[in-house]
Formats: sequence, structure tokens, C-alpha cells
Amino acid sequence: MTAKTMNPLFNLESHQRRALIENGLYLKDILSVEQFTKEDLDYIFLRANEMSEMAARWGTCDLLKGYTLACVFYEPSTRTSSSFIAAMERLGGKVIPITEGIQYSSVSKGESLIDSMLTLEQYCDVIVLRHPEIGSVAKAAKYAHVPIINAGDGAGEHPTQALLDLFTIQKELGKIDGLKVAMVGDLRYGRTVHSLTKLLSQYDVSLRFVSPDTLRLPLDLMNMLIDKGINVRETSKVQDVIENADVLYVTRIQKERFTDLAQYDEVKSFFEITPELMEKAKQKMIVMHPLPRVGEIHYSVDKDPRAAYFRQVQNGMFIRMALLAAVLGQA
Amino acid sequence: MTAKTMNPLFNLESHQRRALIENGLYLKDILSVEQFTKEDLDYIFLRANEMSEMAARWGTCDLLKGYTLACVFYEPSTRTSSSFIAAMERLGGKVIPITEGIQYSSVSKGESLIDSMLTLEQYCDVIVLRHPEIGSVAKAAKYAHVPIINAGDGAGEHPTQALLDLFTIQKELGKIDGLKVAMVGDLRYGRTVHSLTKLLSQYDVSLRFVSPDTLRLPLDLMNMLIDKGINVRETSKVQDVIENADVLYVTRIQKERFTDLAQYDEVKSFFEITPELMEKAKQKMIVMHPLPRVGEIHYSVDKDPRAAYFRQVQNGMFIRMALLAAVLGQA
Amino acid sequence: MTAKTMNPLFNLESHQRRALIENGLYLKDILSVEQFTKEDLDYIFLRANEMSEMAARWGTCDLLKGYTLACVFYEPSTRTSSSFIAAMERLGGKVIPITEGIQYSSVSKGESLIDSMLTLEQYCDVIVLRHPEIGSVAKAAKYAHVPIINAGDGAGEHPTQALLDLFTIQKELGKIDGLKVAMVGDLRYGRTVHSLTKLLSQYDVSLRFVSPDTLRLPLDLMNMLIDKGINVRETSKVQDVIENADVLYVTRIQKERFTDLAQYDEVKSFFEITPELMEKAKQKMIVMHPLPRVGEIHYSVDKDPRAAYFRQVQNGMFIRMALLAAVLGQA
Repeated sequence: MTAKTMNPLFNLESHQRRALIENGLYLKDILSVEQFTKEDLDYIFLRANEMSEMAARWGTCDLLKGYTLACVFYEPSTRTSSSFIAAMERLGGKVIPITEGIQYSSVSKGESLIDSMLTLEQYCDVIVLRHPEIGSVAKAAKYAHVPIINAGDGAGEHPTQALLDLFTIQKELGKIDGLKVAMVGDLRYGRTVHSLTKLLSQYDVSLRFVSPDTLRLPLDLMNMLIDKGINVRETSKVQDVIENADVLYVTRIQKERFTDLAQYDEVKSFFEITPELMEKAKQKMIVMHPLPRVGEIHYSVDKDPRAAYFRQVQNGMFIRMALLAAVLGQA
Repeated sequence: MTAKTMNPLFNLESHQRRALIENGLYLKDILSVEQFTKEDLDYIFLRANEMSEMAARWGTCDLLKGYTLACVFYEPSTRTSSSFIAAMERLGGKVIPITEGIQYSSVSKGESLIDSMLTLEQYCDVIVLRHPEIGSVAKAAKYAHVPIINAGDGAGEHPTQALLDLFTIQKELGKIDGLKVAMVGDLRYGRTVHSLTKLLSQYDVSLRFVSPDTLRLPLDLMNMLIDKGINVRETSKVQDVIENADVLYVTRIQKERFTDLAQYDEVKSFFEITPELMEKAKQKMIVMHPLPRVGEIHYSVDKDPRAAYFRQVQNGMFIRMALLAAVLGQA
Repeated sequence: MTAKTMNPLFNLESHQRRALIENGLYLKDILSVEQFTKEDLDYIFLRANEMSEMAARWGTCDLLKGYTLACVFYEPSTRTSSSFIAAMERLGGKVIPITEGIQYSSVSKGESLIDSMLTLEQYCDVIVLRHPEIGSVAKAAKYAHVPIINAGDGAGEHPTQALLDLFTIQKELGKIDGLKVAMVGDLRYGRTVHSLTKLLSQYDVSLRFVSPDTLRLPLDLMNMLIDKGINVRETSKVQDVIENADVLYVTRIQKERFTDLAQYDEVKSFFEITPELMEKAKQKMIVMHPLPRVGEIHYSVDKDPRAAYFRQVQNGMFIRMALLAAVLGQA
């Protein structure tokens, strides 16, 4: 974003204002995990925890009263759009939901994405944008005069997902440094795995990558980790990592990635999380999944207290509450 | 639903808490008309009347401040979804509307309905769910940890429609016992007729069923009524019941139900409500319809003060306000 | 609309009540620009300016607390529906958004538009309606019991667009009388041009019409202007009017209007607004556009402070806030 004209409620004490300048998120766009320092992450997680307490006690509050969010989804994603809508409403802000049908509307028909953003920003104080084209959200943010939060741009970034993943690890296990994190599934194309890996590389962690041979972590990411001195290992069976993992981060393996279906059926069981497998895991560890799942984690695992994937969903709402408050200067 | 983790505002006086336990709706799912005792119905109608008075005076209130509803429609129904949205908003609650496009979204693509519910409940305190498959809403409620209100599951149940129908009878005529209720139209497939009939069978009413021969009330329902000793009669002409009916409950007859269109044209006039027909009706009676109508009631009947079908729509909002407040413990 | 039954908050001082009766908008439908006197326009613009100040200071307020708007779009228009939603929410009112999928729903399937309106008005205090058929909104308003605001009925009217256009002229230039307004583009089919022209004909303005020969202003409109003694001229090149124009109102020329594409390419440059062209314009003038644009105004013009088209969008929100408050009696 460039500059802000209509922003009503900025009315903070000087120490709060200073904190905002220090955390550096006020009126910033949220575009990529690479923009966050460790201090930013500490600050966001602190706020997300406060949001969690507020929601448990009161459900909603008035922190963002007077502010309006335009929630603009050029492709549907009920999980993410609902999370942002709930986040803004719980903070007392208003929402303009533009989550369906935008592709049939004059806003997009023939009109450039930039013009659509320059139009919608006239009604609101912050825009959440999901768009199928990689790079499109960053481009929109370059022209817009209100902060833009990237809710996914195709194969590009989905920073709030990575933040909620990392927040979940810290909230569930009390720390990030010193943990062994195993990533399981499609590590080649999985956007969430790539983003979380980048965030984790700022910490003192050990990483285990479990995937079929054709779906291994991309070379550039692996080299980045090695350059940073992160302890990494790759394997093709979740059985190899289950005993020592503090975090098992499971993702979908799409059948379509296999030219030979027999091969898919052969390797599939190496990545399935079952109650039997969980018996070998530590007592204090968590299983995560960005969802939706389609068979990677057996339903009977849900009852296991270590199954953290639905709590992970709720953490997404708290992270988004923290980000909305931060970019709007209500630290 | 099973158990509730994040529920902020339960903060009642002991006599209120007792009332809730007695009325038995707090944190309960609303799945079927068969779950309601006569005492439940009395309580719901009492509350719906209070809601009506509140809305007339103030429009909105803060009873459900701090609560969030996810309104999830897997098939569109503007009338029902709008009614629930208006109900929640008038009570000061927040709404996450998921009324369109869910079928194209990752929440449903490949994902089980149960997982979608376990995801969305992380953002909200109560879910209203409409789904085309019979039994799906009850199944979802079995796994969810927040109350689920059935807004229609295909040919299955649509309990809030039946409640608003019965509430309309009581509100308009001051009582239910002693009334003669005539059901007109497609009594074989009409979900609303079946549900209302079940509710009415708890009262001392006379029932008249008016339908083409091929669209008569199902045998099991008829036998249930006879077993309960309800005064019932069947006929094929509305002219036979118009003079004595206190309630004329009209439903659509779908042309498609007839293999022989000549037969449809022949019987059609036996079920049409016209101003001429209304001249034969009592001065104090009401005409109801679950809507939408497509010709069963002539537009010129709308001006008749006995035409209650649009007031019936508004009663639906009040019933839904009463139910939302009850399941969330704000009795 | 005919008469109002459930309207909670009418609780004004006598001088306010008198003002409302004088301005004459309380409980009125907003259907056409032709319904407004110059006094109405003065009143609406005064209120829109107050709304602008309120929004800049507080973002939202409680003026319409207790009121609910049903925002019903039978064809998508993100710009207009978002504007009305933001307007109602900034005034503290509730919104039932029915902006997508209504065509697949039982509300419209087989059901008449009138019945849909008579249904939805049971939930709300005011309806904003967009419908593709000319005359449909006025017809709906004839039967509805709550005020209906026309948000566009096909080739018919779109009165709030014309109001925001005129308001923008007054707000940007401080007056309307005495101005030279040039309309550019498709003047034959352009609904916004026709409506704005009608409104401007109440003032002491000079009008310049710039269009290809086949897309000139319709005869009846031109004759109306001449009858009223308005100073008018027509031309086919924007270069002819740029030096003296106080307002340059640009609209899209659709390629499809030309049978001979060579002709389109030939005339196109006569209507394009470029930085070079703007060098010839006055220092104090504005460029307007109803948006979306598809090339009529070069993106590099956006930086020019005389480019008013995005401010024009925001003025639409303020005009709609003023109208919602006026028809609901919160003057």
C-alpha cells in the first residue's frame, strides 16, 4: 500500500504507538512469510494468545469498532474466508463479504484487479484478498492505499496459514526451539510445507521430510536449510520418524501426481496416520494438518488428544485477529 | 453435539439456569419435530412472542452479543437462510454466512461433511445446516461440539418450518386445541405437511386432508393419527372442508407428479384458493402456505385479512430467534 | 411501498419530524432521478457531506441501530452491492446480503418477484433491489410495505448512481450552477449519462456531448434540454471540449456497438483520456467515470489530482448512507 487517507480511530498512547512502530506492522501489507522477523512472530503470537483469551471470555469485543474489512475471494475457500470474517466480527469490525460470484460481476469483468482494489478500498480500511494468480496480491498491494492481507495467491504465498501453523506448535508445545518437526506427504508442491519450513528455519529445530521419491522437498529449499545449518533428514516412510517427532505435519498426497497408480497404492501406506502408528509416538507430541484431509489421517485418530488439527483451525482465527488489529494500529 | 469448549457468556441467575435445564434446549441440537414435548413447544412459543415484541419496539437487542452463528447451506434457500441471518443479527450475534458456493470450495471438495463441521465449529457457537441428503444433519450433529440446527435435510426434516407453522396457528387463533385444520395439496411428498401433522397430533385437533387420489397422506402417518384417536377425514375437494376449517394449510401440487397432464388439469381447480372460495369460509380462520406458491392461492386473496402466509414468514424469524437464544442458554 | 407495520425506532423531536416531512423522503421508495426536486437534492447532499465527516472521524455510528436492510441483487454488481452494504453497516444497521445465487433458490424459482419481496420484507425495514428487467423495481415497490431503493433495473434507472455523480460535481467544485459539463463516450445507450443529464437539467449548466456519430444522445433527451433552454453542443472529438470543461464525464464505448471494427479503431482515439490531453484542460476541473473502465482513461491519468473517479466511488457510499437514513426517518 502507498498512503492512507480515511482512517478514523488512531488514538493511541505514546508507548502503544512506539510498540507499533517497533513491531512494524501498522498499515503494512501482509504478503509473505519472508517479511517477518522473529520479533514480529513473537509479537503476533503474543497478540494471538490474547485474542484467544478474549474470545473464550467474551466472544467478541470492540477493538476494531469503526473499521471495515473487505474480504475479497476470487476463488472460493470457505475455511479461509470464514476465518477472516469471524476474526473481524469478533473484534467488533464490519465486514463486506465478496466471497462469491465476483468473477461474474462488473468489478472483474474486463476491469483490472488494480481498479477493483482501488474501487473497493473506498469502502473499507483493510482488504483480505485471495486470487488464483501468483504474484497478483503483491501487485494489488503496490497500488492500494489500505493494507492488503494475502489470503493465498495460487501457487504463491498463503502467509496466514504458515503463521497459524507455527503459532499452533508454540501454543501446543510451549516452545519452538529444540523441537523435531516431521513434514509428511507431498513436499514438492505443498505450499503450506514450503512456507512453514521457511518460518521454522529461523529457529533451532530439527526437520524430517517424509515423502514419496517423486514428491521430495525442492532443492532450493533444502539447500537453504543446509546453508543455515538446520539438522535435516529425508525418508520415505513415516515409520522412520514417528518415535522421535514432536510435531507430525501431515499433508495430502494427490493421486493425480502419480502417472502409475500402482505406485501410488504401493507407497500410500507409508504416509497414513493410524491409531496403530500413533502408539509408537511420544506422549507429548502433536499431529497437524492444514486440511482438508482425504484419508491421510484416519478418523479414529481424532479422539487422540495429540490430534491438534482442529485446534489448529481455531488458532487461524486468533492469528487473523492479531494481524487485523496490528495492521489497523490497534496493537 | 457432544461437548462444548469455547462458550463465553453463560452467566445466568440460578432461576434462569433452572428454567433452562427444565426447558431442556440448552446446548441441544434441533433436529426433528419429534424431539419436542408440549412443554418445549409452550416454552418456544412464549419466547417467540417475546422476540416479536422486542423486534417491534427496538428492532435489535444484545441478547446474543458475543455469540457467532455459522449459517451453512449446501443448497440455496434464500427464504430460510435470510430468516436465520436476520434472527441472529436481531439478537446482537454475529453471522458467518456460508450460503453459496460451498460446493465449489475446499471445505466440501473431497472433504467429509463431518470434517467441514468440525472445522467451522472452531469459529462459532452454533451452526445452522441445510444439506440435500436425508439424515446428514443428524449425522453431523453427532460429531459436532456446538449445537446444530437442522434447516432442512432433503426429504427428511425441516423442524423450524413446522414450529413456525404451529406457532402461527396459535398466534393467529389464540389456541390450538379444539381447532379444525385442513391440509390441502400434495400430502404424499410434502415434508411440511408431515412435520406439522406430527406436531398437531400432540393436540386435541380435527384434521382434514384434501388431495388428489395419488397424493394422499402416507399410510403410516394416517395410522399414527388414528391410533392416537385424532378425528381425521380425507377428501379430494377443498370445497368439502372450506366452511368449517379454522386453518387452511395449502401446499403446492407439482405438475411433475402427474403422468397424465389431462388429469392434472382436471383436478387442479379442486385445490385452488380463490376469493370466491374464501366467501364460504368462516370469518375467523386463516389461510397458510409454506411458500413459495405457484398458483395455488390466487394473488387477489392476499388482501383478505385471513391470508396469514406472509405473517407466517415473519413468525419464522421469531421462532428462529427463540431457538437460537434457547440453545445458547440465553433463555 | 404502501404502508409500514413493523418499524421500531421512530422517535424524533418535532423539528426533526417536520424536516422529514419537508424533505419528503421518509418511507418513500427511491426509484428514479425524476422524483427529486432541487430541494431534495440539496437535502441529500447536505446529509451525504455529514456522512462523509462521520466516516472520517469514527468510521461507524449507531444512527440506524435497530434497522435491517435486505440487499437483493438478481444480477451481480459487486461495486453497487458492496457500497450499500458498507453504507448500512457504517450506520450501525444490520444487513441481510442476498447478492448471489438468488436465481437458483426457491425464492425465485417459480416464485414471482412480488412474492419474493413480500417474503423478504418480513425480515427487514428497507430493501435495496437490483433486477435485470426494466420496470421491475417500480413494480415491486408498488406492492412492498417497506421502502425499496432501486439499485438498477436493466436498461431502466439507477438513481443512486446519478445522485452520486451530481454530488461528486458539487463536492469537488463547490457548485453546480455555471459549470460546463462534457459527457464523453456512448451517449446513446449509457444509462448513467441519461440520468445525470436529467438531474443537471434542473441547474444552470452548459452541456457538451462528445460521441461517435452512431452513439449520439437520444433525440427526446436532446429536445428536453433544448426546451428547457440549456446551452448544449454536440461534437465527435473530446479535443473540442477539453479546454473549457469543468467536468469531463467519461463512459465506456463498447466495441460491440460497431458493425465495422475499422470504424471503431478510427474514432477510438477521439475519446481516450491521456496525460497529453489533460495538459490542455483547466487546472480546476475534474475527470469522472462511472466505472468499470476498460481503456477510456489511461492508467497514468490516475496520478492527476483532477482524476476524481475513485473519490466518486466513495461518494456513492455517502449518498447511500444519506438515502438509507432518510427513508428510515433518521434524518
